[in-house]
Amino acid sequence: MAADVVLAVDVGGTQTRAALVDREGHVMHRQSVRTPADEGADAVVSAIAQSCRSILSEAGITTAIPLGLCAPGPLDAKRGIALSTPTIRGFTNFPLRQALSDALGVPVTIENDGPCAALGEWMCGAGRGTENFVYVTISTGIGGGVVSDGHLMRGRLGLAGHVGHMPLKTESSAICFCGKPGCWEAEASGSALQKKALVAGFTGLPDVFARAEGREPKALSFVAAASDDIALGVVAIIHLFSPERVVIGGGVSNGFNVLGPLIRERVDARVLPPFRGTEIVRAGLGDDSGLIGAAQLVLHPHTAA
Amino acid sequence: MAADVVLAVDVGGTQTRAALVDREGHVMHRQSVRTPADEGADAVVSAIAQSCRSILSEAGITTAIPLGLCAPGPLDAKRGIALSTPTIRGFTNFPLRQALSDALGVPVTIENDGPCAALGEWMCGAGRGTENFVYVTISTGIGGGVVSDGHLMRGRLGLAGHVGHMPLKTESSAICFCGKPGCWEAEASGSALQKKALVAGFTGLPDVFARAEGREPKALSFVAAASDDIALGVVAIIHLFSPERVVIGGGVSNGFNVLGPLIRERVDARVLPPFRGTEIVRAGLGDDSGLIGAAQLVLHPHTAA
Repeated sequence: MAADVVLAVDVGGTQTRAALVDREGHVMHRQSVRTPADEGADAVVSAIAQSCRSILSEAGITTAIPLGLCAPGPLDAKRGIALSTPTIRGFTNFPLRQALSDALGVPVTIENDGPCAALGEWMCGAGRGTENFVYVTISTGIGGGVVSDGHLMRGRLGLAGHVGHMPLKTESSAICFCGKPGCWEAEASGSALQKKALVAGFTGLPDVFARAEGREPKALSFVAAASDDIALGVVAIIHLFSPERVVIGGGVSNGFNVLGPLIRERVDARVLPPFRGTEIVRAGLGDDSGLIGAAQLVLHPHTAA
Repeated sequence: MAADVVLAVDVGGTQTRAALVDREGHVMHRQSVRTPADEGADAVVSAIAQSCRSILSEAGITTAIPLGLCAPGPLDAKRGIALSTPTIRGFTNFPLRQALSDALGVPVTIENDGPCAALGEWMCGAGRGTENFVYVTISTGIGGGVVSDGHLMRGRLGLAGHVGHMPLKTESSAICFCGKPGCWEAEASGSALQKKALVAGFTGLPDVFARAEGREPKALSFVAAASDDIALGVVAIIHLFSPERVVIGGGVSNGFNVLGPLIRERVDARVLPPFRGTEIVRAGLGDDSGLIGAAQLVLHPHTAA
């Protein structure tokens, strides 16, 4: 019989989060530790294992329960190998699944973070009930994952859904983290919008969103411009994937109350007629999409690569 | 036992092509007739049926063999209904599959033209052997279809792969057929490039390509600019779908000898490192991708919606 609660780990470039998660996406005994990203793969594996042991001990679990993990890619999910994660030293052709399985003595499943977060939202969050949906996370950068025809899309090396690097504004002077001008991420990510907010005299994006809720004209016009930039990428996504729903997560979705209606309006004004009315909603799992998705990989093995 | 030769029909807004096609994609007894697009759905069905009867008679086939058809969407392929094809009068909530099946007395399978052409290239053309590939047709407009994780992607209403309407150059003054500025199609389609070629003093795109093969500087610089515009969309496609290969068809692919190397160079200079080296090749089936794909739908029923 399949376990009903599993270990879930979301490895980020700065922070690693671990917890016990069940089929409904409930997160229990959550822990968060610094990712020792500069100390090599063994240090990262040790930190994960230690965190998991501490969770199991806290929960009083002594049996071996399986673990699902997501991390920045590219990971070869089928073979269990971290191919070349740029933000973690040593995650280069590193047998992550085996190393972690050896350290903890449990079966391990790994997945790229974009598809994994999409899986979390699909099974337990704002993507429920769809056959085709796209998850977009707008925070430091812009990432995402795709469900198409009821299937979690992976693509070569599991790298489908790198939506942040569509060249949508090549005339712009904003340079992306990737070094190129005009990526969607360079215009519409949390970092990009935060920088624009500071230049415009706000104390930051939260300030913009609060003032826009209070109907301050300057904040409303900032939010309108941000919605334009976000909508461009959503328009591209809708034409390419034809989803029933686009789910927006990440830090910028904290402003969804004010951004959402404007994004919808701009998208509907621009897409071809049969795409009008595509639902655009806020993510349902906050920062936990990846963590919860990592658990669902294990709890619903047909979703694993 | 499944048939080895089937009827295949590719309905376009101006021309309808029909033929017998086998599993290897051989096209036999080809016919091409004008699509009576202004005369309503019944006239279109009659024209298709007449063309098919004439093919069967010419081939001396008296048994009922099944038919695969593709047409501009959106079509509901599962239910067999043309939902709202803009270029054909009467293709609005029209039970195309049933009407054609009644007219010919054979089983009919229908599909949207983008995915169907991708299927043709995947099974019999330049997409063979891939698990993830994107077919892009650059002619009057820009369309396409996607194979992801070994699965022909459809999306809501079968409309996935409308790659022409990514808003890639919103600062541009070129207005797309859809009425919006800056769509990829408005910059890089055959019509857009043809117009630019005339403005630049060429007699047309074929003239540009011939002169570029002869290394005429002015033609080479035109081709370089066209490659820039084509590459932008390919960059977006690669980040979103992570294909092993992008296959370019349509009229503009006649210039692939001169365009191909430049497109590859520009794409590789722009994509994130793990996407470098994605193959970019010319379509293998010329104008027959859709026709051959329509046959494969029937010959390989697991590929049908």
